[in-house]
Amino acid sequence: MNVKIAKNSGFCFGVKRAIKIALEAAKGNHEIVTLGPIIHNPQMVKKLEDEGIKNVDDVSAINGRPTIIRSHGVKRETLLQLKKDGVEIINATCPYVSKTQEYAQELSEEGYKIIILGDKNHPEVQALKSYIKEEVVIVTNANGIDNKNYQRVGVISQTTRNVKDLQEVVQALVPRCHEIRVINTICNATTIRQESTLKLAKESDLMIVVGGKNSSNTKMLAKISENFVKTYHIEIECEIEEKWFKDKENIGLTAGASTPDWVIVGVYNKIIKCMGDINSKIERIKDIPEFEEER
Amino acid sequence: MNVKIAKNSGFCFGVKRAIKIALEAAKGNHEIVTLGPIIHNPQMVKKLEDEGIKNVDDVSAINGRPTIIRSHGVKRETLLQLKKDGVEIINATCPYVSKTQEYAQELSEEGYKIIILGDKNHPEVQALKSYIKEEVVIVTNANGIDNKNYQRVGVISQTTRNVKDLQEVVQALVPRCHEIRVINTICNATTIRQESTLKLAKESDLMIVVGGKNSSNTKMLAKISENFVKTYHIEIECEIEEKWFKDKENIGLTAGASTPDWVIVGVYNKIIKCMGDINSKIERIKDIPEFEEER
Repeated sequence: MNVKIAKNSGFCFGVKRAIKIALEAAKGNHEIVTLGPIIHNPQMVKKLEDEGIKNVDDVSAINGRPTIIRSHGVKRETLLQLKKDGVEIINATCPYVSKTQEYAQELSEEGYKIIILGDKNHPEVQALKSYIKEEVVIVTNANGIDNKNYQRVGVISQTTRNVKDLQEVVQALVPRCHEIRVINTICNATTIRQESTLKLAKESDLMIVVGGKNSSNTKMLAKISENFVKTYHIEIECEIEEKWFKDKENIGLTAGASTPDWVIVGVYNKIIKCMGDINSKIERIKDIPEFEEER
Repeated sequence: MNVKIAKNSGFCFGVKRAIKIALEAAKGNHEIVTLGPIIHNPQMVKKLEDEGIKNVDDVSAINGRPTIIRSHGVKRETLLQLKKDGVEIINATCPYVSKTQEYAQELSEEGYKIIILGDKNHPEVQALKSYIKEEVVIVTNANGIDNKNYQRVGVISQTTRNVKDLQEVVQALVPRCHEIRVINTICNATTIRQESTLKLAKESDLMIVVGGKNSSNTKMLAKISENFVKTYHIEIECEIEEKWFKDKENIGLTAGASTPDWVIVGVYNKIIKCMGDINSKIERIKDIPEFEEER
């Protein structure tokens, strides 16, 4: 019996940074809000609420309070509106997300038709789209590419997508475009978490993926894992059922870039407990091996 | 029994244009040369020789005579040398090839590392390479892509390659490049000839591909066809052997972009004759159906 945690999992640079910015801003302010959840993890958002950082979903609910811009960024017009309203802006947008917005704007200004690999309803993509004046095409994979011919196409990606999907999108475009300019904006943290998950899924009998149900990168980890082995995507330990582990030898555990360590530790301990209850072989382990140091 | 000719085959725009330029130039000149074969078809080159257009392989053999630049283009430094020597230049470079040279130069000047899909020994690629100051990577397919990571890569293709290879090259580059700029310089004539050949090969029991053994685009047609059916790549009718057609029902015939009509007609008639000799069923047909009008 064995529970293994993916070498690269949990908080990425952009999420760590956003939480740090938020907590520091909260120190000096009694009233502070984030415009939309700062990261896609309800447990962490709840914890920030306990620190006095409230989530509001619309500009109209800000009421002049200092406002944290979420890690996924916000629409260009929203940012302009906040500035116009004289709202104190605390920008916690992931620098990689900001960079993607800059690329999108540059490509668009240079006359490229923009194709985004991403989820059209995700706030990162919504924000990204707002930096492009012309109509954009948004696809979740190569099947979304239509049969049109294009003269000059610029391809960018939501930072948390799968590089394989980006490859397939570009491949599908080659025969129907005179020129394609691809900026690979999938962030490195995404790629290494996906690679770690893939590796672990291949050697596991069961995979537990931990992270927000609304988290794009966590959903992608679950999708990758599902291709190889039975996979459960959970947010917190109490979702775990003992019966999942019956007759399972190797359990893999991974977590999205917005999943806090204390949530991962909770899930890990719960798995050990469940397996111990069934098999009476595994001791409860308090530390997470080769986890902290790998990140 | 049926002999079908690929809808799109034989001379392309660039080849027709080069021959026309050469013949017109020959009218007013007793002594005229091409620097390297004007097109990759030995039969046509021989015919031009009869018109007084001699092929020389080196600048040193020009001896001040007016010089035709072949359809594949020549190296930048060769062109500069000819100009310096005061040689009268008659430029028969295919405009699509010239355009590819311009793209290569532009991408290189903009700081992109250039990757060329093509045959490093082919004169078109040799010429193309001369327009790029930095060291270039030349690959014949995706297997040629090394494991290096690149910041900014510009990808161009010899005009006669296969779009599937270009797709695979670009696909292989996506995970290891920050930015990829692909200019699809595979010419339309190449693509439609390949598509016609593919379609015909799929419905034939035997394929005859006609064109210069040194012709890149003809070799590519043969390669595509070979994936589906027994294929012979020949230059002229006398290479045909009667036994090839034994027990064959549907014969497909296609020809490269540098193969003259009179060579194709000769091959067609020879096939009909061979099949008639074996089967005594097929009449000799003098006209080529749905061929001339399709181009």
